[in-house]
Amino acid sequence: MRTDHVKALFFDVFGTLVDWRSGVAGAAQALLESKGIVLDWSAFADAWRDQYQPAMQAVRSGKIPYTKLDVLHRRTLQTILPQFGLEHLEQIELDRLTLAWHQLDAWPDVQAGLARLRQRYWIAPVSNGNTSLMCDLARRNDLRWDAILGADYARAYKPMNEVYLAAADAFNLVPGQCLMCAAHGSDLQAAAANGLRTAYIARPQERPGLSDRAAAISVDVSAASVLELAARLGA
Amino acid sequence: MRTDHVKALFFDVFGTLVDWRSGVAGAAQALLESKGIVLDWSAFADAWRDQYQPAMQAVRSGKIPYTKLDVLHRRTLQTILPQFGLEHLEQIELDRLTLAWHQLDAWPDVQAGLARLRQRYWIAPVSNGNTSLMCDLARRNDLRWDAILGADYARAYKPMNEVYLAAADAFNLVPGQCLMCAAHGSDLQAAAANGLRTAYIARPQERPGLSDRAAAISVDVSAASVLELAARLGA
Repeated sequence: MRTDHVKALFFDVFGTLVDWRSGVAGAAQALLESKGIVLDWSAFADAWRDQYQPAMQAVRSGKIPYTKLDVLHRRTLQTILPQFGLEHLEQIELDRLTLAWHQLDAWPDVQAGLARLRQRYWIAPVSNGNTSLMCDLARRNDLRWDAILGADYARAYKPMNEVYLAAADAFNLVPGQCLMCAAHGSDLQAAAANGLRTAYIARPQERPGLSDRAAAISVDVSAASVLELAARLGA
Repeated sequence: MRTDHVKALFFDVFGTLVDWRSGVAGAAQALLESKGIVLDWSAFADAWRDQYQPAMQAVRSGKIPYTKLDVLHRRTLQTILPQFGLEHLEQIELDRLTLAWHQLDAWPDVQAGLARLRQRYWIAPVSNGNTSLMCDLARRNDLRWDAILGADYARAYKPMNEVYLAAADAFNLVPGQCLMCAAHGSDLQAAAANGLRTAYIARPQERPGLSDRAAAISVDVSAASVLELAARLGA
């Protein structure tokens, strides 16, 4: 199997391991409803998430220097306030709201699946989320990572090559010894282009109607959950 | 107390948490004795360690680009071979010998001490050791870090300012919310100069006669072990 020489598993996080949509919607509701604000909370989460790629693109293109995701989230929150009539919120409330991204729950299979995989592989998030955000999610969901890799570590955003290559190098591995695990085709395609092995983890529940699925691309492993991935890898 | 606002603890690793001297001596002996080689194994470990600062200084001064410690260890091993009559060793043996630094045991108080501190603080190594090396030591000694920070993360070597500042920033903290814990005065002095709080952990057993002790500098906390540090911080 093309995964026989794999020694490290890299995980995308938003969508692949954690439910950002319900989490951000719920955190926003918990913060704002008591102030008499009524919104379509899922639409709010989606609108915020829609600003994610354009914000990172400004870094990828060199228009702005590397800026961690927490800061980008805070800026993009500002831009969506008018469409939800939230311009009156105070700075401190916006800061608190930005922490919604640190308070996301993992899908039910993740904790047990990673614990199994960890017995056989190095495991690390290779996410565009910053280190502090990853640490909060790990504590909340009892995830035991070997290291926090990804955007902050490489000071670049996926799907830029250096994010995948820096992660492999962190474990003293060549790309072919690393398996990128993600629910998104674009991430897996970029990983494969850099020589990594790829595992697709299906998360149709991430965002109904979202089209970035890996069905059309060729991957080394495919699974419906992290537990199923562990089973497929014999871990 | 000056540590009241501390949220993250950063740990030096070589000497402060792990016994590099016995570890490297023992690993070298295990690898080479069966080939009929007889050495003063501790002297060998000391000679290798003596090349540590000069090797990093080439990076700090800009003479060479950032190069991870595993690579520096491999190069400095080459330079000490003649003084121990080891020039005949093959490349693969030298590569294996370099991994001695990945197989070090923690001092007896470390695992339990860090587990206690983790209940109250973010904890991370801020070492000049590279990520893979830190991950091997963590697995071997059952250390549960929130993140692996330090040289690879900052792409610089302590005591350069950016190593301490990048570590604080990784946790979204200001330096004054971070406590650098180390057995070496030079490390603590640089941390303090960057606004971090400082904890001295005495390790006279690291290397008999070594003079870089913190006795002469002013620190915020002083302890004889990580467990004692936990007690002093009320963790």
